[in-house]
Amino acid sequence: MGKMITQGVSEQEDMQIVGAIEFSEHPQLGQDVGEVAGIGTIGVPVTSDLPAILDDGDVVIEFTSPSATIEHLQNVVDAGKRMVIATTGYDEEELAQVHALAPQIPCVMASNMSVGINVMLQAIQLVANVLGDDYDVEVIEAHHNQKVDSPSGTALRMAEVLAQTLDRNLSEVGVYGRHGIVGKRTKKEIGIHAIRGGDLAGDHTVLFVGTGDRLEITHRGQNREPLARGAIRAARWVMGAPKGLHDIAEVLF
Amino acid sequence: MGKMITQGVSEQEDMQIVGAIEFSEHPQLGQDVGEVAGIGTIGVPVTSDLPAILDDGDVVIEFTSPSATIEHLQNVVDAGKRMVIATTGYDEEELAQVHALAPQIPCVMASNMSVGINVMLQAIQLVANVLGDDYDVEVIEAHHNQKVDSPSGTALRMAEVLAQTLDRNLSEVGVYGRHGIVGKRTKKEIGIHAIRGGDLAGDHTVLFVGTGDRLEITHRGQNREPLARGAIRAARWVMGAPKGLHDIAEVLF
Amino acid sequence: MGKMITQGVSEQEDMQIVGAIEFSEHPQLGQDVGEVAGIGTIGVPVTSDLPAILDDGDVVIEFTSPSATIEHLQNVVDAGKRMVIATTGYDEEELAQVHALAPQIPCVMASNMSVGINVMLQAIQLVANVLGDDYDVEVIEAHHNQKVDSPSGTALRMAEVLAQTLDRNLSEVGVYGRHGIVGKRTKKEIGIHAIRGGDLAGDHTVLFVGTGDRLEITHRGQNREPLARGAIRAARWVMGAPKGLHDIAEVLF
Amino acid sequence: MGKMITQGVSEQEDMQIVGAIEFSEHPQLGQDVGEVAGIGTIGVPVTSDLPAILDDGDVVIEFTSPSATIEHLQNVVDAGKRMVIATTGYDEEELAQVHALAPQIPCVMASNMSVGINVMLQAIQLVANVLGDDYDVEVIEAHHNQKVDSPSGTALRMAEVLAQTLDRNLSEVGVYGRHGIVGKRTKKEIGIHAIRGGDLAGDHTVLFVGTGDRLEITHRGQNREPLARGAIRAARWVMGAPKGLHDIAEVLF
Repeated sequence: MGKMITQGVSEQEDMQIVGAIEFSEHPQLGQDVGEVAGIGTIGVPVTSDLPAILDDGDVVIEFTSPSATIEHLQNVVDAGKRMVIATTGYDEEELAQVHALAPQIPCVMASNMSVGINVMLQAIQLVANVLGDDYDVEVIEAHHNQKVDSPSGTALRMAEVLAQTLDRNLSEVGVYGRHGIVGKRTKKEIGIHAIRGGDLAGDHTVLFVGTGDRLEITHRGQNREPLARGAIRAARWVMGAPKGLHDIAEVLF
Repeated sequence: MGKMITQGVSEQEDMQIVGAIEFSEHPQLGQDVGEVAGIGTIGVPVTSDLPAILDDGDVVIEFTSPSATIEHLQNVVDAGKRMVIATTGYDEEELAQVHALAPQIPCVMASNMSVGINVMLQAIQLVANVLGDDYDVEVIEAHHNQKVDSPSGTALRMAEVLAQTLDRNLSEVGVYGRHGIVGKRTKKEIGIHAIRGGDLAGDHTVLFVGTGDRLEITHRGQNREPLARGAIRAARWVMGAPKGLHDIAEVLF
Repeated sequence: MGKMITQGVSEQEDMQIVGAIEFSEHPQLGQDVGEVAGIGTIGVPVTSDLPAILDDGDVVIEFTSPSATIEHLQNVVDAGKRMVIATTGYDEEELAQVHALAPQIPCVMASNMSVGINVMLQAIQLVANVLGDDYDVEVIEAHHNQKVDSPSGTALRMAEVLAQTLDRNLSEVGVYGRHGIVGKRTKKEIGIHAIRGGDLAGDHTVLFVGTGDRLEITHRGQNREPLARGAIRAARWVMGAPKGLHDIAEVLF
Repeated sequence: MGKMITQGVSEQEDMQIVGAIEFSEHPQLGQDVGEVAGIGTIGVPVTSDLPAILDDGDVVIEFTSPSATIEHLQNVVDAGKRMVIATTGYDEEELAQVHALAPQIPCVMASNMSVGINVMLQAIQLVANVLGDDYDVEVIEAHHNQKVDSPSGTALRMAEVLAQTLDRNLSEVGVYGRHGIVGKRTKKEIGIHAIRGGDLAGDHTVLFVGTGDRLEITHRGQNREPLARGAIRAARWVMGAPKGLHDIAEVLF
């Protein structure tokens, strides 16, 4: 992700990379981050000392582990800077720490930084709101054959958004496969299907099927570059944002 | 359409068919509209005399010709009732007459009554707003092999909505085919592709293609039933609406 | 189906409807089958007496129940005519009777008469043969919300054809849903997903996903007309066929 | 491509990279090709002298320019080895030279080495053969916004295969866009649509649309790895092949 963010920022006229952080045993410490990212020397060495470089910049973009994120968030709060947090996988205690620290600065946080995924989440909410119970809703996702969890976190997020919008409880209405004489589909159920194969990077489809017509909304991801682009967009936005923990939706909508 | 509306209304608990209009030489004049629609006798004969039955009901649903629509609209205004107009194909003068008469009553009018199509129009607007010029936009539609005009009116409507949202002029940026060494795609162009084949009822796709991901929104129509359903939904809504010419978007959003 | 076959045959220059059979209590017995099918009077009344009309024609097209099919097949054998059997749902004994009688005449039989479905079955066999274990295979079908069995018979047929082509046993490798930490996809498994919603007539997709690319083959059915067309194609073919029970694949390939 | 072939061969139990060729000013001359490909040192330096290393191996895989290909082909003929040629873009004279030299050794040549694309070409031929003129045929491709030629060479190849199978002349029946009152679709025309956007690697769809159903066959490419895999598959096959210029179809079918 560091390479992609470095490349992405280098394409922005109003932004500059002024520091690059890796953990303290990383083999590329000391190398120029521009060279690592394949965009040529930019005079910024990779370091593991965040506080030492915080004064040079405005916003920290974080794609690390929960523990590193909390440490860095404390550093950023101390320095009175801004932060974009794209790290995932917190336990409850870690999340509580983030929620205690983040509101002291302008901070954006998201479980998925992809603009495409987030705009799809908004679109399916809009559609579900209008179509209501008149259309049956199903979610289909497809990922590579090495993925161990099914359905994907993003597909579950979509199903939750749909359930909430339609006043349903996903734990009651989620259906994760149909096999045998299962009977007619009930009005409230939401089917969620996980396709696995090859090195498929990640597709997500929400299907709204009515009588005589249907609507299909599909996001296809090829790589993680959209995550970097979303984080960069959030970094620009957070420069004008008030103190507080902001959702990526505030950035985009 | 009359049959579909009769069937559709019969499924509503709070609605009733109290009259059915056809032109004066129609072979089914005098027959029970329930029988014609295949839902059993409902005691409502098909007639060609709209004023004679207007007192019995609240809302007229109109899927006819422009000239018939204007005549009926005058009748409905005189009777102080409400109207849902789904007729299309007006010339300028006809449209002016509709615009003069309709605001005197609560009236809903739409070029396409399908809830699915209208919600897709809203969704692509939302998506285009967020993605802006970062994603390339293309429209693809598919219809049966007897259709003489390309692209479909609905595809053009979608392209117009996209162009407007993206601050572009469709007459400048619309591209209706690519053949030969046409050069790199320009940032602002909107490709519009018309597929023709078999008895395909009507598919519409809007594609937003970025770097590393894309979003596809597709509506597939199987028949005209969604038009009837949209009109029925508009009829319920217009009962609570103030005088004025309302767009279907007001009904749905 | 009778109406669709009547309509379909009326469009063939080299074919003619000479008889139409319904069960003995059918309300339309005695009516002209052309009128019933909406193509105008053709002078052929609906009857329940097959033997009485067999002499007038060459081929019987059968879309009925297993018991009626066996009775009619005996009639056709006695008369030395030809038959196209599209009936499904036999038990073992019934199937044995069909297999005993049918080879005495030129006879075509198929579990699905649709040319589109049958050509898709051939295509997925061809593709699976070439791609072998290098690509992961998944089957996805979508049907209306009133369907009680999942996956569809046709999807299971496709999965069986794929399993056979890939030297696998479907009862061992079929996976009908993924939920939770299910682990990496195994090389041999075949995912089969049943989507349900609205009045969707029937879509079937086979996905071959490799490293860096994938192949998707999708059949979309709108109604049962393709079944009638396939039966008519089989009827023409069986006129030149030798005695024997022929599969629809022989007709098409 | 060289990196991908090196990686791909390293995954084969029965194959080994024994040489790696680049043009004479290439900056990575002398480096170990395993290191260049990111799979660790394998003791094979990149060189520009093909004749010097030909004795060490059995098959040359060629993804270069037409002129380099002809020179290398002459080297391989002289050494009595085998060759897999994936180079494209010959003019007539160059093609004649290849056709004169190649048959002197076992040689496989293809305009597209992707197994997925080639199996799709076979599948659409099979389907077009069965469906004939009963189904309307359209080709849709989608590529990135930097592509200057439309439609893609592969889409045109597909259209040609379809036209040939259906006894049509593509230069007469190809339709590359529909705009305005173009009238009903003619029975014989083949629509070919080029979508452009983002960094889309390359999708190709062939649509067969009939009355009541349709068949869609889609290939989606993510990167050029399938070309490397196809070339490796051809290299294994050519070891057992007789002298002659073989098409990739012989390898696969």
